[in-house]
Amino acid sequence: MTTEVKPSPRERLLEAAATLTYRDGVSIGVEALCKAAGVSKRSMYQLFESKDELLAASLKERAAAYVVTLLPAADDGRSPRERILHVFEQVESQAGAPEFRGCRYLAVQIELKDQSHPASRVAQQIKANLTAFFRSEAEKGDAGDPDLLARQLSLVFDGASARAGIGVDKLTGLVAPTVTTLLDTAGVR
Amino acid sequence: MTTEVKPSPRERLLEAAATLTYRDGVSIGVEALCKAAGVSKRSMYQLFESKDELLAASLKERAAAYVVTLLPAADDGRSPRERILHVFEQVESQAGAPEFRGCRYLAVQIELKDQSHPASRVAQQIKANLTAFFRSEAEKGDAGDPDLLARQLSLVFDGASARAGIGVDKLTGLVAPTVTTLLDTAGVR
Repeated sequence: MTTEVKPSPRERLLEAAATLTYRDGVSIGVEALCKAAGVSKRSMYQLFESKDELLAASLKERAAAYVVTLLPAADDGRSPRERILHVFEQVESQAGAPEFRGCRYLAVQIELKDQSHPASRVAQQIKANLTAFFRSEAEKGDAGDPDLLARQLSLVFDGASARAGIGVDKLTGLVAPTVTTLLDTAGVR
Repeated sequence: MTTEVKPSPRERLLEAAATLTYRDGVSIGVEALCKAAGVSKRSMYQLFESKDELLAASLKERAAAYVVTLLPAADDGRSPRERILHVFEQVESQAGAPEFRGCRYLAVQIELKDQSHPASRVAQQIKANLTAFFRSEAEKGDAGDPDLLARQLSLVFDGASARAGIGVDKLTGLVAPTVTTLLDTAGVR
């Protein structure tokens, strides 16, 4: 007989916050979150100081999976150019899923419109790590201007995921040629 | 003696909806909108079927100003390359304003997460017109693949305004070199 480990109230709240805010936006109410998690409001407020803190924690919780899904493994033997292109192949592949709504860390910042909100700060940090990855690969790949290339790749990443997330572009035949052009111009072969 | 023409309740509601949703997001309540407009809820519902319809109408109302601010005048004698670059100069210049929150037509679609919402449909149409402008200039400029270039420019436009809107990039020294690279690669001289 196997013993199923039931997720804790904390885990269920983090999961509900991540799922529902991604699908419906950050304005989702505390009642809906608690209902989806099967946790009382009283218990929620014992675990999290506020809905804002719950939201921030749910974004942090997803960060590890986000990195694993997007980034290549450290020292996978591929060139910086290939490692950068890998990230965009993942975005293109994710964008094909019907439930894709774009990058959750971009969306949450656009929705909150408050850079000092705890969830915005978590999102900023996670996206800054992505830009730092681009910056580091750009430098290893001898980009003429690694800072510029990192900013360009971050811009393409956000533009692509935003446009696919709202369903106006499927990204096919778009992201790879765009990134390739930027890598070529930067001298990353 | 001058006679001031006071904006009508309809105009005040459109203005309040445009201003408050841009600043605070689409989840702003009907009460707050009516309060800011100085219009009763009863009057609002006589003028607009629903908050969704008010939001859609407020986006449509702003479309003309959006086009004038971003696009060059028709037949201004400049080359397609210069006319495309003009749009991105406007974005970079807008992004410098402290109240800039990115493109309202992108934000509203990301926030609503519902492509069939009346406000999403208005936003889609206005952004499709921008892509059509890029497409038409790309063709006039003999781009190798005008469709691809139009999609790339739309992606850069949305990525740039999203990143500047959340305050993670000021766009200086970023947008012009990116667009120039894409125009060069497409053969638009």
